Amino acid sequence: MSDFASRLIQGTRSLGPLCVGIDPHPGRIPDLFGGDTPEGLAAWGEAIVASAAGRVAVVKPQVGLFERHGPDGMRALQRVCDASQEAGLLVIADAKRGDIGTTAKGYAAAYLSRNAPFRSDAVTVNPYMGLDTLEPFLDLAEETGKGVVVLARTSNPGSADFQARDLEGAPLYARVVEALAPAIDRLKGAEGWSSLMLVAGATGPDEARHLRSLAPQALFLVPGYGAQGGGASDALAGFTRIGNRLEGGTVNASRSVTFPSGSDTAATKADWRQLIEAAIDDAQADLSRHAGNTAVTSG
Amino acid sequence: MSDFASRLIQGTRSLGPLCVGIDPHPGRIPDLFGGDTPEGLAAWGEAIVASAAGRVAVVKPQVGLFERHGPDGMRALQRVCDASQEAGLLVIADAKRGDIGTTAKGYAAAYLSRNAPFRSDAVTVNPYMGLDTLEPFLDLAEETGKGVVVLARTSNPGSADFQARDLEGAPLYARVVEALAPAIDRLKGAEGWSSLMLVAGATGPDEARHLRSLAPQALFLVPGYGAQGGGASDALAGFTRIGNRLEGGTVNASRSVTFPSGSDTAATKADWRQLIEAAIDDAQADLSRHAGNTAVTSG
Repeated sequence: MSDFASRLIQGTRSLGPLCVGIDPHPGRIPDLFGGDTPEGLAAWGEAIVASAAGRVAVVKPQVGLFERHGPDGMRALQRVCDASQEAGLLVIADAKRGDIGTTAKGYAAAYLSRNAPFRSDAVTVNPYMGLDTLEPFLDLAEETGKGVVVLARTSNPGSADFQARDLEGAPLYARVVEALAPAIDRLKGAEGWSSLMLVAGATGPDEARHLRSLAPQALFLVPGYGAQGGGASDALAGFTRIGNRLEGGTVNASRSVTFPSGSDTAATKADWRQLIEAAIDDAQADLSRHAGNTAVTSG
Repeated sequence: MSDFASRLIQGTRSLGPLCVGIDPHPGRIPDLFGGDTPEGLAAWGEAIVASAAGRVAVVKPQVGLFERHGPDGMRALQRVCDASQEAGLLVIADAKRGDIGTTAKGYAAAYLSRNAPFRSDAVTVNPYMGLDTLEPFLDLAEETGKGVVVLARTSNPGSADFQARDLEGAPLYARVVEALAPAIDRLKGAEGWSSLMLVAGATGPDEARHLRSLAPQALFLVPGYGAQGGGASDALAGFTRIGNRLEGGTVNASRSVTFPSGSDTAATKADWRQLIEAAIDDAQADLSRHAGNTAVTSG
C-alpha cells in the first residue's frame, strides 16, 4: 500500500495538478439531476466524478454543502466518496474538523479508518485547538496510508483576522506550519513528499514561496484557482521546481469546472457532461502548461 | 420567540448551571441499548435525554462521536436532537464547524435554520479562519433566535500551542474574544446576555475572570467539570455575581454523568436510569450550591 502523498504526486504527474472541488451549492444543482435534494446531490456528484475520472487525480467534496441536508445529505456524500474511489480518484474530504482527542478520534474514524463510512484519502482539519487535537488524525493516517490536510493560510478575506497576525515574531499561519514540522517529517512517504498537507491559500507568490520555504516537503492544497480569483501561475507559486516541472500538491477549482457557463441550462445530461469535461480539460491544461507537465500539455 | 441567551439563562436559573454532554464514546454504550451501533447511539442518547429532562436546562451532543458511524450515526444524532427538543431541553450541537462563507452557510443551515435537520439551539464554531467565516452563523442565529458558541480557550493541553501564545501583545484567545465584541453586542438578548457564547476552558480562576472581563455579556460554555478534572468553584470562576447568585453560562459534564460508576454493568434500564439520574442530580446540586442557586439547592 502506497502512502497518500506518493499517490497524489504520481497522479498529478500523470494527469496534472488540478483538483475538482465537488461543492453542491444551494440552488445550483441542475434539475437534470434532481435539483437541490439529497438524491440530486448524489446523482450530480456521481456525474461530476464520472467526468473527472481520467482527467484529474483528485476530487474534493465540500462536506458542509452535503451536511446541510442532514443524514440524507451525508448519505449523498458517502455515494460521492464511493463513486470517486471506484473511479480511481483520490478523495480529499473537505470537512475542516477539529476537536479534543477522543472526539477527534471519532472524526478520524469517519474519514480515515480502513472501514471509514466516508471513504477518503485525506481530510482537512483545523489547528486552532492545538497539536494534540491533530494526533488522532496523524495516527490513523500513518496506519492506513492516508493524509491529513491542515489549514495554514486560507484564502478568504477574514484569514487576515488571526492567521496573518504576528504571533511572537511571525504570522500565526507560519507558527502553525513550524509547529507541524515533526508531523510533516513523520508522514514523509516514498516519493519524499509528506502526507501532512497544508491548505496554502497564499495572498500572492511571495507568501506562497515563504510557505514553501517553511515546509519544503509538505504537499500544498491550493484554493482560489478559477472562480475564486487567482490565475495558474499564482496558484503554482508555492510549488517546487524539479527538473523542468513544478510539483508539490494540487490546485482546487470548484465552481468554474462544475458550474461552467451554460451548464445550468443544458438540455440533456450528454450536453451537460460535454460542458463539464471541457471546463475540466481547460483548467487542467492551463495549470499543466504552467507546471511544465508535458505528459498533459503534449496530449 | 425568545433569544437563545435568555432561554439558557432562564433555564439555568430554575434548574442550575449543569449541561449534560452526550458523548457516545466507542465501547461505552451499554448493551442494554444495543452497544456501539447507530441504533445503540440513538437509543442510549434518547434515554440520556429522558433522564436529563427536568434536571438540567441544556444538553450538548458531541457530533464527532455520532459522525464516526457515517450517515446512520448522523441519523442517531438527529433523533437525539429531536428527543431533546421535545423534552424542552436546549441543545448545543458540539460540531466545532468553520469554513468559508458559502460552506459556512451550509453548516449554519444544518444546525441553526428553522428547518434544520439537526434541531439545535446553538452550534459550536471554530474562529481560526476569521470573522467572515462566522457571519453566516451569526446571521442565521439572529434570524431564528439561536446561538453561536465560538471556541476561545479550550481545555485540552494543546490549547497552549496557539491559543495561549502572544498575538501582538495579548494571548490569541483574548484577541479572538476582542474581535468578537461587535458580534457579542449584536446578539444581546432580552436578559442582557448575548447569544454569542464562548467556550471558556480556563486553566484556572484568574484566567476565567480575565475572560469574563473581556466579554462581560457573553455566555460561557465551560468544559472540564467532572471527569475532565476541575471542581465546581473553578468551573464557575468566570460567572458573574448577580445578587447572591452566580450566572453567565453553563458548565458541561459528560462522562461523569452519562457513564457513572456501575452504569455499564446495570442489569436493567431502570437500574441504569437510577444511576444516571443520581449522577446528574449530584453534579447539578454541587454546581448549584457553589452558584448560590437556591431554587435548586433548597429542593
